[in-house]
Amino acid sequence: MKKHVLLAFLAVWFVGERLAAQEPADYVDPFIGTTNFGTCNPGAVCPNGMMSVVPFNVMGSDDNRYDKDARWWSTPYEYTNSYFTGFSHVNLSGVGCPELGSLLLMPTTGELDVDYHHYGSKYEKESASPGYYTISLTKYDILAEATATPRSGLVRFTFPEGKSNILLNLGEGLTNESGAYMRKVSETEVEGMKVLGTFCYNPQAVFPIYFVMKVNKVPQASGYWKKQRPMVGVEAEWDKDQGKYKLYTKYAKDIAGDDIGAWFAFDTEKGEQIEVAMGVSFVSIANARENLEKEQHGRHFETVREEARKRWNDDLGRILVEGGTEEQKTVFYTGLYHALIHPNLLQDVNGQYPQMEGDKILTSKGNRYTVFSLWDTYRNLHQLMTLVYPERQLDMVRSMVDMYREHGWLPKWELYGRETLTMEGDPSIPVIVDTWMKGLRDFDVDLAYEAMYKSATSPGKENLLRPDNDDYMNLGYVPLREQFDNSVSHALEYYIADYALAAFAEALGKKEDAKMFRERSLGYRHYYSEEYGTFRPILPDGSFYSPFDPSQGANFEPVPGFHEGSAWNYTFYVPHDVKGLARLMGGKKNFVRKLQMVFDKGLYDPANEPDIAYPYLFSYFKGEEWRTQKLVKELLAKHFTTKPDGLPGNEDTGTMSGWAVFSMMGFYPDCPGVPEYTLTLPAFDRVTIKLNPRYYGKEKLVIEVANPKAKGDYIKAIRLGGKKCGYRISHRDLISAGHLSFEKKP
Amino acid sequence: MKKHVLLAFLAVWFVGERLAAQEPADYVDPFIGTTNFGTCNPGAVCPNGMMSVVPFNVMGSDDNRYDKDARWWSTPYEYTNSYFTGFSHVNLSGVGCPELGSLLLMPTTGELDVDYHHYGSKYEKESASPGYYTISLTKYDILAEATATPRSGLVRFTFPEGKSNILLNLGEGLTNESGAYMRKVSETEVEGMKVLGTFCYNPQAVFPIYFVMKVNKVPQASGYWKKQRPMVGVEAEWDKDQGKYKLYTKYAKDIAGDDIGAWFAFDTEKGEQIEVAMGVSFVSIANARENLEKEQHGRHFETVREEARKRWNDDLGRILVEGGTEEQKTVFYTGLYHALIHPNLLQDVNGQYPQMEGDKILTSKGNRYTVFSLWDTYRNLHQLMTLVYPERQLDMVRSMVDMYREHGWLPKWELYGRETLTMEGDPSIPVIVDTWMKGLRDFDVDLAYEAMYKSATSPGKENLLRPDNDDYMNLGYVPLREQFDNSVSHALEYYIADYALAAFAEALGKKEDAKMFRERSLGYRHYYSEEYGTFRPILPDGSFYSPFDPSQGANFEPVPGFHEGSAWNYTFYVPHDVKGLARLMGGKKNFVRKLQMVFDKGLYDPANEPDIAYPYLFSYFKGEEWRTQKLVKELLAKHFTTKPDGLPGNEDTGTMSGWAVFSMMGFYPDCPGVPEYTLTLPAFDRVTIKLNPRYYGKEKLVIEVANPKAKGDYIKAIRLGGKKCGYRISHRDLISAGHLSFEKKP
Repeated sequence: MKKHVLLAFLAVWFVGERLAAQEPADYVDPFIGTTNFGTCNPGAVCPNGMMSVVPFNVMGSDDNRYDKDARWWSTPYEYTNSYFTGFSHVNLSGVGCPELGSLLLMPTTGELDVDYHHYGSKYEKESASPGYYTISLTKYDILAEATATPRSGLVRFTFPEGKSNILLNLGEGLTNESGAYMRKVSETEVEGMKVLGTFCYNPQAVFPIYFVMKVNKVPQASGYWKKQRPMVGVEAEWDKDQGKYKLYTKYAKDIAGDDIGAWFAFDTEKGEQIEVAMGVSFVSIANARENLEKEQHGRHFETVREEARKRWNDDLGRILVEGGTEEQKTVFYTGLYHALIHPNLLQDVNGQYPQMEGDKILTSKGNRYTVFSLWDTYRNLHQLMTLVYPERQLDMVRSMVDMYREHGWLPKWELYGRETLTMEGDPSIPVIVDTWMKGLRDFDVDLAYEAMYKSATSPGKENLLRPDNDDYMNLGYVPLREQFDNSVSHALEYYIADYALAAFAEALGKKEDAKMFRERSLGYRHYYSEEYGTFRPILPDGSFYSPFDPSQGANFEPVPGFHEGSAWNYTFYVPHDVKGLARLMGGKKNFVRKLQMVFDKGLYDPANEPDIAYPYLFSYFKGEEWRTQKLVKELLAKHFTTKPDGLPGNEDTGTMSGWAVFSMMGFYPDCPGVPEYTLTLPAFDRVTIKLNPRYYGKEKLVIEVANPKAKGDYIKAIRLGGKKCGYRISHRDLISAGHLSFEKKP
Repeated sequence: MKKHVLLAFLAVWFVGERLAAQEPADYVDPFIGTTNFGTCNPGAVCPNGMMSVVPFNVMGSDDNRYDKDARWWSTPYEYTNSYFTGFSHVNLSGVGCPELGSLLLMPTTGELDVDYHHYGSKYEKESASPGYYTISLTKYDILAEATATPRSGLVRFTFPEGKSNILLNLGEGLTNESGAYMRKVSETEVEGMKVLGTFCYNPQAVFPIYFVMKVNKVPQASGYWKKQRPMVGVEAEWDKDQGKYKLYTKYAKDIAGDDIGAWFAFDTEKGEQIEVAMGVSFVSIANARENLEKEQHGRHFETVREEARKRWNDDLGRILVEGGTEEQKTVFYTGLYHALIHPNLLQDVNGQYPQMEGDKILTSKGNRYTVFSLWDTYRNLHQLMTLVYPERQLDMVRSMVDMYREHGWLPKWELYGRETLTMEGDPSIPVIVDTWMKGLRDFDVDLAYEAMYKSATSPGKENLLRPDNDDYMNLGYVPLREQFDNSVSHALEYYIADYALAAFAEALGKKEDAKMFRERSLGYRHYYSEEYGTFRPILPDGSFYSPFDPSQGANFEPVPGFHEGSAWNYTFYVPHDVKGLARLMGGKKNFVRKLQMVFDKGLYDPANEPDIAYPYLFSYFKGEEWRTQKLVKELLAKHFTTKPDGLPGNEDTGTMSGWAVFSMMGFYPDCPGVPEYTLTLPAFDRVTIKLNPRYYGKEKLVIEVANPKAKGDYIKAIRLGGKKCGYRISHRDLISAGHLSFEKKP
């Protein structure tokens, strides 16, 4: 460890490590995606861990460029900000609404001041690697370091000589919910609960987090604080604390309120280190304590940090890339790192977790996952899990089916046991079908089908997932009934889901169902406007919506019929019937011309999900595959870099990175639910994926460029298991062959 | 019960009952002292019970004359107000600072509205008797009734047909502390905690109350509410609840915050009754539940009400009065009722209670009492307890000595385990000494003496009870070091305490101590100003404070040297050396002349403690005793009536009533710590006090007027046990004789 500390002090730690990099974790730069609204953060976290310990720098100072309370804001950390107000415990990465990011832990020195407008600090020497983050607080001369286990955090502060303080702020956080409860357990321990929720301004999506916090040194003094309600008149004169933060110096029993905290005061020697451990649970305080004790066992910071790093190396190491630049490796492994953050563990070490949309405490056999941003992740993230982490994907699918069992509906955007109903569609269907189609079938398939059938066929009024199902079932499309009801976007999602459901029904021998759902899936044709050559909203009377501008809707501008995008971002989103769409457009030529125009005219949005598979659609047409290869390479180079703004936009819980990871490996699952990939030239000379033999019957899958030294960006030939193949291959064939070889055009 | 309900509906219940009155409880009018700043309330309570269920009508409407948040305000109920916002559970009666009065329970009908500015109601048909209160809410046509056990409340609502709601508001209350925590236990039960404290603006005197609340009907729906923190900008646009009360309709786990509540919605039939039971504890939620279950056993409202009434009849019935008017009986029994509210039980049914100024949970063998407003109650309340309820007084003394054991100091103004340090002096000493002198000695006498000696002799800096003890010990008085430091008031209290302590030391054989303390107790002479004939503040250089106005300080006007009173209210307050004070003043004649002048010129304040024994001082001087008899009769008639303003001012937790009760019985303990009484003509023909034979060796004490039919207001002769006696008698002689007879001058 000495070497690391020394390097950190020399402020060359990061660069130094990079040069000596040997392990996958060394290629991860957690600062990528931490600005440009990427909403990633450089905090310490384990793969798919419940806990993350994240530097919180989005409140308390006008010096910050972005303030969580002054605008839309959904991440605890922003790279270009400068005022640190503590570590937040348990956070979301790559989401678009404010949530979690509370249990704020801050060190200070000198007189106790519990107002975050005052106690925050500027910083320097910021550095991060998987499972580790460090920062030097210039105002206090405090070195702060964070690491994590799956369900607990561990923070180490190195203090100067004198009065030092540790503050736990339960009043602030990214979440829009307020209210917390806490009690002192001993001189070195507090426990409590904080209310979280209201994700994406859904007022009922509320849930509690329970915590236990321990410091490893007995403080000189400790207590609470609470922001007092303002008073008027003589009461205001007499109560000197009214409207202010009141320090509780002699009260150590239960405390509760909107804005409370705990303080611990120490006399420290120069360089003295104090560690603060935080265990959390979404079930109970007792489980939070058990999580902390079972996962940390009182181990020291360095040990916990090494364990976290090992977890990352094990997981990232399932894919080995060779060739390519150092920067490409960094983009790749950081992408894989981002793809391994959500969904994350929900159950405690004893297996308990909160029932989906219910008040029961249940016990899970395998891992119970949470944070399913499925409108995003059904497109590629779960396909990546299925291929590289199949045991994990199976637990995710089981979690989804169990949510149906507990709540009566598959998830749409599940968050710690709450259905937030964010975005649209029925995205669990393609995820589960895709998984099943790829041979991962060890879940309750009948119940899964029952769940899918329910949402696909229940009347709209009682249909949580498809509220406009009456129109959809009756008309074959969803008409525009309110100006900004996103009706076309809804229907496009239903088509895709129903196509996957049809295939699933077919495979299960339910021919009638299969026929019905397959027919439904082609209803997209209703929306095609000959006049504009795009999809176009339909009014309740069956006529097209007018006036119509197919390019309206960029940059989150509201637009009738479409959600977060223009008609151009949606018109090619019929991945299950690309050829059919081409026929509708007048044939391949027109299709290719218009799709190319989307890119040429800047109508393509690399940061929003409906169009991210567009570059791969060219490869459905013989002779046009070069466009895929060209565009993917260009998009990777332009939007995925090693800089903090090195993501095209919101990471969407791994979906942006999922695109990059697949694309850099040379294949992409462009049609969710269909077990096929479209191929492009890999960014690396050789990619080795360690397969799980239990599921795939073999140890590895190798993708390589046969002539890596040849210059050229285009594919001449592809061989699967040594035999020539086309630009689209099935998952089964890929696994079966175990070897995919690209020959470049020199 | 039919008869009662019928009478209530005829709105003649109270009058009807009064005419048929046979029991002591029938003579209690809980509305006496509920205006004119008496700060009593008509709520349901058991004798010395922890629980009281009180109509809360001091917030939410401009129609109210007094609002808790708009001015100094210390009572949950004001007779002249008109807007009811629920029943507060656990309240203080007759105090001068806001505290407790939370856990507000309100019934409404129609659409749910949780804003107390809206949901309150005007009312009619208000009625109360010991252990019972009822009100009819005109806005909702709801009849609300309340009763109580010692540690639990029971409220019954009679609803009209339709949508009905029950609200538990944890955000408001009389206390200046905020913050609460709650969780749903079942469809019909919630449990939680509320932070209380900051009594008399002492920011650290904070303590929790735990509760369990049950409704006896399963609601159609239930949930929480919380006032949301205000937001700005787009957040404010997106969060429709910001700054408002948000209803939680789908969240039923832990909730916490400054301003939270629970709602229960019912469909009710016309006349349907729903009962709401509330158990409380100052130890834990589990104990709150046990208190509720052990004391109510699920019994119905009428049964609990009858039990409460029986408790009152048993306690009030320890004194039987005959003769006198119905109004005098009402004043007397209401006074006794008020004297039996505080101190009240602190321990739970399992014996557990919170350590004094500490975090331990301890177990009490006897009853542990709390709410010791000792600067008030040491003057007569504890003497009343000692005589009529000796077993209770002994538990109070044991509680006080245990507080020393737990905390290192005897109490001054103890409130639920916190020393609020309100008012001044060392009032535990006269209370304990007085009790011991009257033969109640079954407590840790050595520890009690140790405790008294500690506060009497510890240096000021480390002396919690006598912060100015350095001056006092060095100089024999306390000089004025700050303009409004109440220095003379402080010292006068120390003199009285030290006199009692001297007698105690003497009795315990500690002659040196006795001498020291007795000498100290005469230090009051320093303050006597020949020039003004009153006590006068002394400056640190030994000179008197100038300019000086002995009448300054009435009506709570701040005045140098004196606390809540003028020099005239304090100058005769040397009850342990009345004769010595008279000598200082130039003899009996001057003393009597000046004391009479205090009354004649309106300088006497019947509502503040330091001068309330003044009327009895005349009886120290032969031939002047008629003045006592005349003044006591006049003061009773003028200040103690059956009207809501029938107390002279703040009840001071039973001290005003203690004065009236003793005075109406014909004797008064004018020197706390000295086991003697001064006699005056009783208001009744015959008073029979049931004595506790265990302590007094006999069953009763009778005070009677030998010639009741004779007209006349003055005493001709007094006989104790048949033998003529003077105007001052000892406690021992009174008990020993068992019979005190007054002969009126016809």
